[in-house]
Amino acid sequence: MFTSRTIGYASTPYKSTKDIPKGLGAKHEAEGLLKLLPEFADGLLDIEGFSHLFVLWEFDKSDGYDLIAHPPTDEKRPHGVFATRSPRRPNPIALSVVRLLGREGAALRVAGVDMLDGTPILDIKPYLSNVADSDLRRGWLDLVDPRR
Amino acid sequence: MFTSRTIGYASTPYKSTKDIPKGLGAKHEAEGLLKLLPEFADGLLDIEGFSHLFVLWEFDKSDGYDLIAHPPTDEKRPHGVFATRSPRRPNPIALSVVRLLGREGAALRVAGVDMLDGTPILDIKPYLSNVADSDLRRGWLDLVDPRR
Repeated sequence: MFTSRTIGYASTPYKSTKDIPKGLGAKHEAEGLLKLLPEFADGLLDIEGFSHLFVLWEFDKSDGYDLIAHPPTDEKRPHGVFATRSPRRPNPIALSVVRLLGREGAALRVAGVDMLDGTPILDIKPYLSNVADSDLRRGWLDLVDPRR
Repeated sequence: MFTSRTIGYASTPYKSTKDIPKGLGAKHEAEGLLKLLPEFADGLLDIEGFSHLFVLWEFDKSDGYDLIAHPPTDEKRPHGVFATRSPRRPNPIALSVVRLLGREGAALRVAGVDMLDGTPILDIKPYLSNVADSDLRRGWLDLVDPRR
């Protein structure tokens, strides 16, 4: 058990959750900044060489959790919270994959942000490898995906 | 800020960190169980349809953090902690991608575990999409990778 520590804040175009593209086929191409607190900036050494990063951030507007979620993608059918990206999780930790555009001191300019402006950041990790596309199945999402 | 909540424990073949394959080209094909606590089992509804999952778990043996890491992959050159997978991070949160083999009640049988037996699990999320392989760059790892 541990208590989370905020390492920085995201600066994004999204002032309200309704502004964030959601659901199937939502494109997350918005640019934003991951502004680390100055005391964590040294942890960014050599990050520039990575094309993509995992960003762990806090669902800080979320209060409590539900084991059964009703995602906007498939409102008529409930799914277990661990089979969804619902913010109402036992641990309010979100995961995004972003494209690194560049570093500006203690801040990273990235594309693909999908969090609210001002969201606390918990961690940044390098994105190292993919699952083979031919092996990937997306469960209930594939059943409701209009593109298929 | 939040206090983490353990949702279950991993059962893996690794009793000691030295048993875990590390470094470049390390293959994580070991099978294990993600055993959720009974009170969280309902959150697994519909998880069976996903081929791969993100598992967030706690580096519970890690005490404190360093902003500069010396990964075993590249011992001679230090890298910022956020450009590595070092366990000594400001938030002791680890991320693994596993392949889902099946569900057994409150437990998931998975392949690709890389955590110690008994490790606390924080979250499970569906793995939904890849970065295009042609877009992926792995920074300092590509510079030391003997396979390239």
